[in-house]
Amino acid sequence: MIKEIAEHRSIRKYKSDPIPNEVLEKILEAGARASNTGNMQVYSMVVTTNEEIKSKLWEQHFKQDMVKQAPVVITFCADFNRFNKWCTQNNATPGYDNFLSFYTAGVDAILASQNVALEAESKGLGVCYLGTTNYTLDKIIEILHLPKNVIPVTTLVIGYPDEAPAKTERLPLRAVVHQETYQDYSPEEIDELYDERDNSPATKALLKENNTETLAQVFTKYRYTKDNNVHFSNVFLDTLKKQSFMNQ
Amino acid sequence: MIKEIAEHRSIRKYKSDPIPNEVLEKILEAGARASNTGNMQVYSMVVTTNEEIKSKLWEQHFKQDMVKQAPVVITFCADFNRFNKWCTQNNATPGYDNFLSFYTAGVDAILASQNVALEAESKGLGVCYLGTTNYTLDKIIEILHLPKNVIPVTTLVIGYPDEAPAKTERLPLRAVVHQETYQDYSPEEIDELYDERDNSPATKALLKENNTETLAQVFTKYRYTKDNNVHFSNVFLDTLKKQSFMNQ
Repeated sequence: MIKEIAEHRSIRKYKSDPIPNEVLEKILEAGARASNTGNMQVYSMVVTTNEEIKSKLWEQHFKQDMVKQAPVVITFCADFNRFNKWCTQNNATPGYDNFLSFYTAGVDAILASQNVALEAESKGLGVCYLGTTNYTLDKIIEILHLPKNVIPVTTLVIGYPDEAPAKTERLPLRAVVHQETYQDYSPEEIDELYDERDNSPATKALLKENNTETLAQVFTKYRYTKDNNVHFSNVFLDTLKKQSFMNQ
Repeated sequence: MIKEIAEHRSIRKYKSDPIPNEVLEKILEAGARASNTGNMQVYSMVVTTNEEIKSKLWEQHFKQDMVKQAPVVITFCADFNRFNKWCTQNNATPGYDNFLSFYTAGVDAILASQNVALEAESKGLGVCYLGTTNYTLDKIIEILHLPKNVIPVTTLVIGYPDEAPAKTERLPLRAVVHQETYQDYSPEEIDELYDERDNSPATKALLKENNTETLAQVFTKYRYTKDNNVHFSNVFLDTLKKQSFMNQ
């Protein structure tokens, strides 16, 4: 397996060493080599190293220390702003202020991000994705001055690792793979596929710590609650409207 | 740069040679190693090799020959079905029938797809992404029997290449990179960044062929039209509702 894919760990503690410019440039170039829709390249990578701006981003990423620690934060954006400007200047009328255009641009931005992550790791750097990007996109738009038709879809922090965590366990591969068509799960299959995860020593410790009966409850009650999901869904959809991506 | 990232080309012509099972398994494992939100693994990879089912998918992917030619088609899905079942069986009440949950699951599915693409290329295979997945998701759901809370977000065709295309030209890197915050583009900057693309011999041939004035018009009039975008945006949003991802 490609070494960087096989050896990937999310790194949450970083040294303060900066990333040399030529290394950073290569990493960004790797992002731009990813597949994208019709070679329109409707994404942008915003590279933030300034402490003050990083500190504002840190607040939006739920004050996770790694956002301040890591020397570089890259915000990946679905971006039709540049393409629309190009169209308008070339006597073409862009029709990209709709949900489909946002979604396809978002896919392209995310593909670029994974190339960036792997290329960074190949250079001895560590990375961590920030899912919080999808919660506080409205605030990130303000901080990074993103114009209409630009939406941040994911963020990577990048820097030299100051920890060496173990690889994260995954479900058995057959849990996430379906042959030919989707084969829905029986209750017994679900039990069997999650058995190791449900009953691991790490899970048992977590349940004790949270005074909770099942691992699933840790997710639904604490980590990813319905209230938060509903709130942030509305923020996300409102922001799509404000950024002019919902005119269908 | 990681060889597979540097050397990537989309392959649109395939030999009929099948992919050995042990190779396919390694490729799928690479997908499952990608970062994902909270290690929930809320994605699925549907691997289709059956000619009859592939033929139905081919119709939905705008009858692009490569879908029939390539021995393997993998449909990557945002999937909260499995996770919800696990929650319900474990006395936990899932709150994931909303847009945020769909979007984050989609991000994870797309990160997995890029690992799969690179790992396939490392094994001498070629790949091509099918953006048409976002147009005909409602039909793909029927063909692959995707239950509620599952949405196809991208597709890869994979097989042994029967062509050796040149690398696709990209915009200058500075076109897609912003330092610190977003630096919006002046008309002059747009002209400069797109100059090479606008005036290449390939573009000139394309304009003649389409009897069109500018490259931008090829996109807005033929390739990605407003009418199609609006239509497919509504299909997409309706499907999110039907698949129970819009209850916020």
